[in-house]
Amino acid sequence: MAKKRNKKYQKKIGQIPGTVIYTGEKSTRELFIEVFNYDNDNYIEKDFSNVEECFDFRQLDTVTWINLNGLNHVNQIEKIGKHFNIHPLVLEDIANISQRPKIDIYDDYLFVVVKMLYYDANENIISEQVSLILGENYVLTFQEAEGDVFDSVRGRIRLAQGRIRTQNADYLLYVLMDAVVDHYFSIIEILSDKIEDFETDIFSGNVRDHLNKDIQDLKREILKVRRAIFPLREVISRIEKHESPLINRKTITYYRDIYDHLIQVVENIDIYREMIWSLMDMYMTSISNKMNEVMKVLTIMASIFIPLTFIAGIYGMNFDYIPELHYKYSYFILWGVMVVLFIAMLLFFKRKKWL
Amino acid sequence: MAKKRNKKYQKKIGQIPGTVIYTGEKSTRELFIEVFNYDNDNYIEKDFSNVEECFDFRQLDTVTWINLNGLNHVNQIEKIGKHFNIHPLVLEDIANISQRPKIDIYDDYLFVVVKMLYYDANENIISEQVSLILGENYVLTFQEAEGDVFDSVRGRIRLAQGRIRTQNADYLLYVLMDAVVDHYFSIIEILSDKIEDFETDIFSGNVRDHLNKDIQDLKREILKVRRAIFPLREVISRIEKHESPLINRKTITYYRDIYDHLIQVVENIDIYREMIWSLMDMYMTSISNKMNEVMKVLTIMASIFIPLTFIAGIYGMNFDYIPELHYKYSYFILWGVMVVLFIAMLLFFKRKKWL
Amino acid sequence: MAKKRNKKYQKKIGQIPGTVIYTGEKSTRELFIEVFNYDNDNYIEKDFSNVEECFDFRQLDTVTWINLNGLNHVNQIEKIGKHFNIHPLVLEDIANISQRPKIDIYDDYLFVVVKMLYYDANENIISEQVSLILGENYVLTFQEAEGDVFDSVRGRIRLAQGRIRTQNADYLLYVLMDAVVDHYFSIIEILSDKIEDFETDIFSGNVRDHLNKDIQDLKREILKVRRAIFPLREVISRIEKHESPLINRKTITYYRDIYDHLIQVVENIDIYREMIWSLMDMYMTSISNKMNEVMKVLTIMASIFIPLTFIAGIYGMNFDYIPELHYKYSYFILWGVMVVLFIAMLLFFKRKKWL
Amino acid sequence: MAKKRNKKYQKKIGQIPGTVIYTGEKSTRELFIEVFNYDNDNYIEKDFSNVEECFDFRQLDTVTWINLNGLNHVNQIEKIGKHFNIHPLVLEDIANISQRPKIDIYDDYLFVVVKMLYYDANENIISEQVSLILGENYVLTFQEAEGDVFDSVRGRIRLAQGRIRTQNADYLLYVLMDAVVDHYFSIIEILSDKIEDFETDIFSGNVRDHLNKDIQDLKREILKVRRAIFPLREVISRIEKHESPLINRKTITYYRDIYDHLIQVVENIDIYREMIWSLMDMYMTSISNKMNEVMKVLTIMASIFIPLTFIAGIYGMNFDYIPELHYKYSYFILWGVMVVLFIAMLLFFKRKKWL
Amino acid sequence: MAKKRNKKYQKKIGQIPGTVIYTGEKSTRELFIEVFNYDNDNYIEKDFSNVEECFDFRQLDTVTWINLNGLNHVNQIEKIGKHFNIHPLVLEDIANISQRPKIDIYDDYLFVVVKMLYYDANENIISEQVSLILGENYVLTFQEAEGDVFDSVRGRIRLAQGRIRTQNADYLLYVLMDAVVDHYFSIIEILSDKIEDFETDIFSGNVRDHLNKDIQDLKREILKVRRAIFPLREVISRIEKHESPLINRKTITYYRDIYDHLIQVVENIDIYREMIWSLMDMYMTSISNKMNEVMKVLTIMASIFIPLTFIAGIYGMNFDYIPELHYKYSYFILWGVMVVLFIAMLLFFKRKKWL
Repeated sequence: MAKKRNKKYQKKIGQIPGTVIYTGEKSTRELFIEVFNYDNDNYIEKDFSNVEECFDFRQLDTVTWINLNGLNHVNQIEKIGKHFNIHPLVLEDIANISQRPKIDIYDDYLFVVVKMLYYDANENIISEQVSLILGENYVLTFQEAEGDVFDSVRGRIRLAQGRIRTQNADYLLYVLMDAVVDHYFSIIEILSDKIEDFETDIFSGNVRDHLNKDIQDLKREILKVRRAIFPLREVISRIEKHESPLINRKTITYYRDIYDHLIQVVENIDIYREMIWSLMDMYMTSISNKMNEVMKVLTIMASIFIPLTFIAGIYGMNFDYIPELHYKYSYFILWGVMVVLFIAMLLFFKRKKWL
Repeated sequence: MAKKRNKKYQKKIGQIPGTVIYTGEKSTRELFIEVFNYDNDNYIEKDFSNVEECFDFRQLDTVTWINLNGLNHVNQIEKIGKHFNIHPLVLEDIANISQRPKIDIYDDYLFVVVKMLYYDANENIISEQVSLILGENYVLTFQEAEGDVFDSVRGRIRLAQGRIRTQNADYLLYVLMDAVVDHYFSIIEILSDKIEDFETDIFSGNVRDHLNKDIQDLKREILKVRRAIFPLREVISRIEKHESPLINRKTITYYRDIYDHLIQVVENIDIYREMIWSLMDMYMTSISNKMNEVMKVLTIMASIFIPLTFIAGIYGMNFDYIPELHYKYSYFILWGVMVVLFIAMLLFFKRKKWL
Repeated sequence: MAKKRNKKYQKKIGQIPGTVIYTGEKSTRELFIEVFNYDNDNYIEKDFSNVEECFDFRQLDTVTWINLNGLNHVNQIEKIGKHFNIHPLVLEDIANISQRPKIDIYDDYLFVVVKMLYYDANENIISEQVSLILGENYVLTFQEAEGDVFDSVRGRIRLAQGRIRTQNADYLLYVLMDAVVDHYFSIIEILSDKIEDFETDIFSGNVRDHLNKDIQDLKREILKVRRAIFPLREVISRIEKHESPLINRKTITYYRDIYDHLIQVVENIDIYREMIWSLMDMYMTSISNKMNEVMKVLTIMASIFIPLTFIAGIYGMNFDYIPELHYKYSYFILWGVMVVLFIAMLLFFKRKKWL
Repeated sequence: MAKKRNKKYQKKIGQIPGTVIYTGEKSTRELFIEVFNYDNDNYIEKDFSNVEECFDFRQLDTVTWINLNGLNHVNQIEKIGKHFNIHPLVLEDIANISQRPKIDIYDDYLFVVVKMLYYDANENIISEQVSLILGENYVLTFQEAEGDVFDSVRGRIRLAQGRIRTQNADYLLYVLMDAVVDHYFSIIEILSDKIEDFETDIFSGNVRDHLNKDIQDLKREILKVRRAIFPLREVISRIEKHESPLINRKTITYYRDIYDHLIQVVENIDIYREMIWSLMDMYMTSISNKMNEVMKVLTIMASIFIPLTFIAGIYGMNFDYIPELHYKYSYFILWGVMVVLFIAMLLFFKRKKWL
Repeated sequence: MAKKRNKKYQKKIGQIPGTVIYTGEKSTRELFIEVFNYDNDNYIEKDFSNVEECFDFRQLDTVTWINLNGLNHVNQIEKIGKHFNIHPLVLEDIANISQRPKIDIYDDYLFVVVKMLYYDANENIISEQVSLILGENYVLTFQEAEGDVFDSVRGRIRLAQGRIRTQNADYLLYVLMDAVVDHYFSIIEILSDKIEDFETDIFSGNVRDHLNKDIQDLKREILKVRRAIFPLREVISRIEKHESPLINRKTITYYRDIYDHLIQVVENIDIYREMIWSLMDMYMTSISNKMNEVMKVLTIMASIFIPLTFIAGIYGMNFDYIPELHYKYSYFILWGVMVVLFIAMLLFFKRKKWL
């Protein structure tokens, strides 16, 4: 995993700033562009495979959402950038998928980077970059691959559910970002389940061989999630501060709602981090407790039988003159002494609560 | 527990913003609405089962407190919201019981979310959401179930105790929030008792099997309490800053009093957190100390008897010519040597302070 | 201890705000009121047992200090509050001894809460609340019991030592608070001594049974002291910022001096906290070191004698044909072999630095 | 390493401020000066070995970049400082290579110190100081030795790649700093690889002798990197705040890009720090687990054979009357008993999951 | 050490504010006053033993530096305070050597407290207080004992080295403070060396008896240094903010230089603190590793010889009928079995990598 990330960096090191280079791995992905154009009364939905075909929508007064999937098609990104008059560094950031979530406020558009998180088939967490540009009456979104996180948004536009068709582009941006943040809750659920499983394992004494490593992996997963979500708070917070005229004052109430959700997610993540530390603690303690138990067994066995063996050794000696050897009941008396010793030892360990 | 919370989230993921959905579990709870209307001279107290019946009170100049229990009746919440002109996102937050404590300041009303904490019959801590809306001359409160935390407030209104009947709605909001915060002190008491019990257990050596897990559970409980109370400080702090004209400048002194109480609660919680860490430390140390004790017993037993057994072994050998075997007092001399060795060992361990 | 505090809370939970209730335990304490009235030339000192008798002093232009001991006499506090026109919440805070140190700035008086710390006869740290009210030309102080921390101030007024008699009431407030803060240094001394004692114990190997618990107790003590002193910094800092006209600009230099002292105290406390953590670390390390030593003794004894015992066992076997048994010098050769083995073992452990 | 740094300090202690002293070790390095002078249409590139020869370029309107390698030639630095009217303290800082990254804003020039990081042949991380001065239409750079980090910049100037030839000196400063920051990503890669290697080692049980020390060394390496990179954030942040008129408002967008990269690097470093802590944790846990395994083997062996040996000892005794000795099948019955005991023990340990 | 500090406090507790009391221990130190008076062309240097003799210098336009050694002569400090019109609290602070580094800005002078650090003959770190007062055209310095940290400054004045003779009193203050801060670097060197020594000791396995304690002592030393240096940053930072007209705007550049040095020192100290924690970690790990090694030796010895001894015990039994005893080659066969067992064990431990 780390190896991959490194390669991403390498593609960029030493490049001329403003060069649009795709740093991801899905480089054979086909281009897929979908356009939604709507106002309160009508809506148009079309798919394209060349970005130029959808430039006409910009002239319309209605809200236009252009969703481009396939960041490997950098020339398409450059075309769209030129048409919408986007700064070259923004285009570079769109294609460079190792960006942190951020907001850049330009005079006539907003550029927002968010991270979409999901688990792949192998239970590995995947963080995919989604770039959003909000202009006067349009929203552009750029994704590596066509995801389903925006499906609910598509549905709402088609069926005119909620307020979406009666609102401007700034509300569309809100709805899209809300869809991403809502999705984080499902990640939170999975993390919570994983922690619970570890706990059950540790307390049931079912200490698997790789528990140690698995806990560390989970720790790292949480770190990764945190890193994808944390900076988003500042993004929303800057929108709330009404730094850009593109966001209507009335829409800001909605962004405040996203902010509340984000805080909830971040709080949960921080609690999970603390719980992971506790898990490690409990794991260490359970190891120590096990060791203690092992030591007790050894000590009890050795303490009981070593003195008895010594006594047996005494009367195995071959001295010519050992008077006890010749008494008739010596052997049975000795057994008696040994049994008494044995019971005394047991009582001693009982009192020490080792048994 | 975690499983439950997850389900809460799931109900919300992908929903249209502004949809009022009850995310809790008490979905068969009956609706119960009570209204208090009072001024210095008179007061009216009535119960209703339909929210529309109490809309008339709004017209009056006197202070009106409408307390709605049963968040599952979302249509009632929507009706009341429409009548009092509340933003749809606020209604959504009222029904969504996984909110953090917060304050949203609107032009003509304040929306406050607080958490009421109590222990249920199984000693599990329960955090119930209470939403409060302060308008010009009314306070609306929304609870999942009818609690008794507001009982003292009801009593004061009925009997005109203290200043309550001579003051406006902003003072009523203060009294209600104060009742919630006062209740936190009883939580603090229980936490303090629990910690004390653990301490006694650890120091008395009464290290139960599940102590480890129990401490972790308490840690999590404290985390939960902290999370319910912490954000409230900012809520009060924003009220104190006089951001809304609905709060009279003279009433702010009273909110400062709540703030002081909150700081006290939060400080206690933070101290308990540190104490829990200390408990874990002491627990680990006591395990190590136990291990040490076990090892000492083993070492003493083995170190004393292994050499003696060796000596016995020597004279158990069957060599034809072992001169000592044939001396008359060999056996008794050997016993003497062994006793001396035994005592020397004991002194050695005594000096090492292992005995 | 914790149990006590809890009861304090309980007295307050559910009370009407502004109700003056004594939450402490010294409820049979007699009331004792002393009054100092002075200017540059004269001074009067009188004791009273009813607060009304001393109200005449308020009219005078000279500085008046009314010191009330016995917070259980809440009606007296209410009387004085009414006479001096103090807000009911302030009176409530005076009697509620679980306040944090704080300053409340009202239009015509300042209300300051500080904590006086001292050790009782059982070496337990006691934190007693002292409330101070600074008005135009008077200072009121409220204590649970008559303490001796203000003795030096009394002396200075009587003998006109220093600047006190030439200054106003704001200087008197400074002198009283300075007396409290000065006293903290003696607490610091005792804490420092205790830490040193623990260190000596741990390094001298004199690891008493309850060392673990004692260290935790000291930790808690330091926490308690910190909690009593920490918030005071903000109190002084707000006075320094000249938020109230009652404090003369020239007197502020003196408050800055208190601030410096406070920072010194707080710094020391934080260093002690770190030292306590180090102590725990050293204690754990010393336990591990001890365990190591125990293990070494066991290992050396067992490793030396177990092989020798095996050899002895070999020649204790009863096989008909063991040729070595019949050689004349077998026994002595065997002894030789064993001694060589013994010395080899010793050298081996020597090289490993276990001896 | 530490020894070296100390010597650096010693050279400076007690010196008169403003004295230009080279504190590094490459004191026999030859001076090497290269000059680039360009505008949109032309560019000149020349090498010199005396700084005075390149003073003529200052008069030109075109952008001039003077790159001086060899800080040991302090008189050359002083000459260039005099010519460009640089403050003596700045010259002192250029030659004193133990500076932190910082920016000093003077009226007619900016002074920036950054750290270039690379690994030498022995895999040790080297931090080399690069000082940059931005004037009206020139950039001066000072390096200890001629590095290759600026190679890509040279290339871009020569081939007029990107925007560089069309922009002013402030853009050149950006390009140079960007080259340095870009290079940090390769450091990040190596650190990431090292951590991964340690992890693999620990989990594969391949716990080398010096793992402990190696982890500590890596920790220190990360600390060193962090220290070189962290303060740079503030440098860029101050440039962004447009504190100096030398930086064009349009160029600031580019600096914001560097800032984003820096945050990415710093975030990675902080994650690596946490991972190192986790590594130590896992290492400790793996040691404890090993100990546990060792103890189990010992306990199993001892617990099984010590009782059996005791039984054998019993029948090795020489009492005259031990009835069992004379029964015909005693020996075989005893073997049976021993085998049963042996199996019982195995089952006991199996149930305890030690086998 | 702690005991000493405590006594210092005791001298002050309960004192009237503004009383000048020497709280140190060098109470028999003789008074020593030296005066430098200089401008660009001339300089006078004189020693006095009574402070009144040097009051004439104040009238002169030239810069005057009065350096007083011997804080026990409090009446001399009071005289000088009266003459230069210094606030009594400042004089109290000069004599009270437990001050934190701080700056107090008065209308016509600045009061600065710094700590000079050095190691005494016993390798204990000593922190000596130096108070500096900057007036219109004079600097007063107060030291407990005559130190040599200002020697380089004396030399520069005498020989007119650098800018010192051409500048005002604010530059002299800078030079004096710079001398103190420069000296910190030598402390840093010694700390660095000490840490390196500990590391070498731990890794070479040369774990001395008192290593634990020595590390804790170093930790405390670092704490002490940190405490003496940390607050100085704020002192310089307030000078930089140009809060006082006594500091010329051009001189501030020089103070910024001190600030950079301080940050360097503080950063190093913080790194050392982290390294100390790492040292403790490594120490703990090395103890655990040692224990592991001890346990392995024990386990190998016991596991090999206990079964063999058991076998020998079997054939030492005295049963009448043990068929093996009478076969001719039994004894040799048994030896063979034992050797095989022995080798099997060795291979087993080899595979477990314990050998």
